[in-house]
Amino acid sequence: MKVGFIGLGIMGSRMAANLQKAGHDLVVYNRTQSKADELVEQGATRAESPEEVAQQCRLVITMLSTPEAVEEVALGTDGFLKSLPGNSLWVNCSTVNPSFTIKMAHHAKKMGQRYLDAPVSGSLVPAEKGELIFLIGGDAADVEQVQELLDVMGKETVHVGDHGQGASMKIVNNMMLAQAMASFAEALKLGTALGISEEKLCETLLGGPAAAPFLNLKQTKILKRDFSPQFPLEWAHKDLHLAGVTAYEQNVALPSLHATKELYAQAKEKGFGEEDLSAVYRVFLSEGK
Amino acid sequence: MKVGFIGLGIMGSRMAANLQKAGHDLVVYNRTQSKADELVEQGATRAESPEEVAQQCRLVITMLSTPEAVEEVALGTDGFLKSLPGNSLWVNCSTVNPSFTIKMAHHAKKMGQRYLDAPVSGSLVPAEKGELIFLIGGDAADVEQVQELLDVMGKETVHVGDHGQGASMKIVNNMMLAQAMASFAEALKLGTALGISEEKLCETLLGGPAAAPFLNLKQTKILKRDFSPQFPLEWAHKDLHLAGVTAYEQNVALPSLHATKELYAQAKEKGFGEEDLSAVYRVFLSEGK
Amino acid sequence: MKVGFIGLGIMGSRMAANLQKAGHDLVVYNRTQSKADELVEQGATRAESPEEVAQQCRLVITMLSTPEAVEEVALGTDGFLKSLPGNSLWVNCSTVNPSFTIKMAHHAKKMGQRYLDAPVSGSLVPAEKGELIFLIGGDAADVEQVQELLDVMGKETVHVGDHGQGASMKIVNNMMLAQAMASFAEALKLGTALGISEEKLCETLLGGPAAAPFLNLKQTKILKRDFSPQFPLEWAHKDLHLAGVTAYEQNVALPSLHATKELYAQAKEKGFGEEDLSAVYRVFLSEGK
Amino acid sequence: MKVGFIGLGIMGSRMAANLQKAGHDLVVYNRTQSKADELVEQGATRAESPEEVAQQCRLVITMLSTPEAVEEVALGTDGFLKSLPGNSLWVNCSTVNPSFTIKMAHHAKKMGQRYLDAPVSGSLVPAEKGELIFLIGGDAADVEQVQELLDVMGKETVHVGDHGQGASMKIVNNMMLAQAMASFAEALKLGTALGISEEKLCETLLGGPAAAPFLNLKQTKILKRDFSPQFPLEWAHKDLHLAGVTAYEQNVALPSLHATKELYAQAKEKGFGEEDLSAVYRVFLSEGK
Repeated sequence: MKVGFIGLGIMGSRMAANLQKAGHDLVVYNRTQSKADELVEQGATRAESPEEVAQQCRLVITMLSTPEAVEEVALGTDGFLKSLPGNSLWVNCSTVNPSFTIKMAHHAKKMGQRYLDAPVSGSLVPAEKGELIFLIGGDAADVEQVQELLDVMGKETVHVGDHGQGASMKIVNNMMLAQAMASFAEALKLGTALGISEEKLCETLLGGPAAAPFLNLKQTKILKRDFSPQFPLEWAHKDLHLAGVTAYEQNVALPSLHATKELYAQAKEKGFGEEDLSAVYRVFLSEGK
Repeated sequence: MKVGFIGLGIMGSRMAANLQKAGHDLVVYNRTQSKADELVEQGATRAESPEEVAQQCRLVITMLSTPEAVEEVALGTDGFLKSLPGNSLWVNCSTVNPSFTIKMAHHAKKMGQRYLDAPVSGSLVPAEKGELIFLIGGDAADVEQVQELLDVMGKETVHVGDHGQGASMKIVNNMMLAQAMASFAEALKLGTALGISEEKLCETLLGGPAAAPFLNLKQTKILKRDFSPQFPLEWAHKDLHLAGVTAYEQNVALPSLHATKELYAQAKEKGFGEEDLSAVYRVFLSEGK
Repeated sequence: MKVGFIGLGIMGSRMAANLQKAGHDLVVYNRTQSKADELVEQGATRAESPEEVAQQCRLVITMLSTPEAVEEVALGTDGFLKSLPGNSLWVNCSTVNPSFTIKMAHHAKKMGQRYLDAPVSGSLVPAEKGELIFLIGGDAADVEQVQELLDVMGKETVHVGDHGQGASMKIVNNMMLAQAMASFAEALKLGTALGISEEKLCETLLGGPAAAPFLNLKQTKILKRDFSPQFPLEWAHKDLHLAGVTAYEQNVALPSLHATKELYAQAKEKGFGEEDLSAVYRVFLSEGK
Repeated sequence: MKVGFIGLGIMGSRMAANLQKAGHDLVVYNRTQSKADELVEQGATRAESPEEVAQQCRLVITMLSTPEAVEEVALGTDGFLKSLPGNSLWVNCSTVNPSFTIKMAHHAKKMGQRYLDAPVSGSLVPAEKGELIFLIGGDAADVEQVQELLDVMGKETVHVGDHGQGASMKIVNNMMLAQAMASFAEALKLGTALGISEEKLCETLLGGPAAAPFLNLKQTKILKRDFSPQFPLEWAHKDLHLAGVTAYEQNVALPSLHATKELYAQAKEKGFGEEDLSAVYRVFLSEGK
């Protein structure tokens, strides 16, 4: 049985490669087609459009960076959803906002298809190693159907609840992630202003009770000023934006989230959007540092 | 050799008790005298004023909750500093702002005394178990002199650097702590608004890459609505305030810190100041929840 | 020539009444039909759907409270846009975000119609008195066509520029409005905490150099705790939200805007959404005040 | 009767000059002595220290930029307070925080002197024209004694209430001022991002209901990028800082204030502290704009 895979960026390319290595037959599509070359060389079938994917598969995985991109490949003029055989399964691993993913679940249902929201926790390295954590919303039977594939790409599956709750868990997780990063950037700024070296601050704070574990991965990036992306800053900013929109929809006030969001907005405005999210620290650095 | 201990609140009482158990002879003072009773029953000498402590010791430890309280016991009309024998050592474990602790170091020096800023990382439980982490600013020789006592009260000593740098490291650590707590509170708020239970959110987020390790200790508090203080919210608020004042003094902008500070201010305004810092979550709960 | 008018809430009902009084023949539609009764009694034609409006008019004015509502009446199953005679003019007075209004302009053009974004500055009282200010984006010839009608409903027309720029000017104006209100609420809170009466604060601050002129209208509301809506708080919150979304789209960081937005979110969460925007002050008042 | 005047900066120099022109005999002191030259040439007596002022006057006016500076000239080693004849009057026009001014009132009383907190509303131009507004805390009899002098320097006297309430009114006024400026800067940023010119934004927004009247004075500064100081940005930042400290002392949460404060902190960090407060807009401008 062939697996359709749409979206071969930083994350999707690694996830698809792991599926391929585990023996799964892939039909792949990416807007920038060259990103599919390596998978195709290894035996995957190249589709010229999302629709072509649907014509060859009953299971489609999407891994895209924005709700707009997901909507386009699913429901656009050459979208895949209308061309899938009845009762197929769409596993959407993209990080999108809960109300959007619920809308996609409704579209799928209306068109006789099944849907899982299955965003992942973990960035480049866990994607490569097959150590992602899947946060899933949808029916247990559908999760069961793809459990084997999820186990190839990840190390853990959390079935959070109904449609939308995978996306919901992901968005609150990423809120915490982005806030922890910003908080550490501010700690570094104040600490160095007070005369402590970045090395000493990292050594003392990271691994301690107040530092989120993922921050350990950012130490080298910060000390070496190497902000090559593991998790691009503009995605973190997008997630904070979607969390803000969700808070508005849910009639909830989240003051700290919004203050942090604007720090990332400043970083993006300064041109650091495609760097790693740890580049939020660059907002606090003078030119040339 | 007698050890003076001033300040017997949640933290100080446990630290002094550990010194006593290890065989150290204590001279103790607390403004509310009854808090010294237990130590006195176990053999400590009660002083009627900070000055009386100084008349019996060449080593004084202070553990107080605000800069104002420290200034009062050290330099007030019956303060200890003027009555210490020359070349005594004052170890100030109170969490205060860097510029204040540097001022105290100057006062001490001018009066012929030695000074260490030695705030601790860790709250009630580590204090009780002798598992605090000391963050120290001052001369290495002075640290060496008290290393044995620090090892009784704590499990680790970080000599950060010169006078003020212990306080500096502490304040940036507590910024991160308070921000991680607020960020988790916002995650719980948005997550529950989206229909996920607090239990599921705690189970999935805590222990994960985005959650500061100390948050694990707050799970029961939140789920049981038991906000009895380990680290009182008003202290967290005070630390954020002192971080804000320090940022002003250092000409540094810290937007996220300030947004978080105002969340704690709202919590305090609602009357949760003496509860645990995790009660910042109560800002997000409706009445009766 | 008949004028279609869709949306008869606080603002629309007054604007339509002024057109009627000036002798214009109206075809009116409102989702809650009873809101059209008075206009119908005075001679307006009631339409059962937006589509029915289009079947009788070549000029349609919309005054609705959200982008979603505008999209529904224009493009929904019984939307008016598809049924208008070619080259009709849609004047959209609703406050919506720039990217949305530009999308509507494109839809109109594609369907052979003309479009103006024409949001208004001014709330209930100016609407009633025909003293609104129109902020317009679109073609000068189209503005000219409706100038006479605008002059009935308003006292001034500002032709800001191309499609979208009326909406853009409106949204930045309302940002300033909502921020001025929040800033005054905070000033009242701090001032009263310091022992100055609300009366003295209003008397000294309002009319002074630092107070936006519209705040004068809010004095009685605040002193009498009469928060009946002139400009509902939930609309102010919506405008701040749309400004935030626009800032995201434009890659612009606006930290103060977002902090203010969350104050309004707190007010709305507490149940003050349908009160006047000055009820943001209630966030700062204790229960029973 | 001689009038002592201490602090001859942007504001003080103009106020003192107006007193001199009205025929008052001045004894002047400024840390940077050259700033007194012009007044001395016109007949004022130069004092070499604050103490020397006290030895020649029974009325002392202070106009300094920070609480620290006020404390130094009043209570420092050569401070004036201890050398004033009994029952003299100190009129403190400096903008300082309420708790500080109350402390000064206590010091004065303890030393047998009288005190008024008399900060002013208005910057360079009103100072020059004698059109300041005095916001006064203290005894009515003391206000009466200096009414004539106040009328020379200002156009209006508001006796707010007891000691501290002049300072309190001033600080809430300046909160609103700085927030209005920041809010306008954000409006300009978003408006120009949306394609409207700064000229059109100024023309439409300024003078409108949402714009604080003083913003009219900033139009030229912004359009011409001439940020020469009328009211230095670092003073606005200081006032926001003091408002924040006051909010902490009063147990009050002020989220918008703090977000705005950090914008000014960013502006100051970028080196715009000595420019006009309107230079907060420069935070939003790219390099070279």
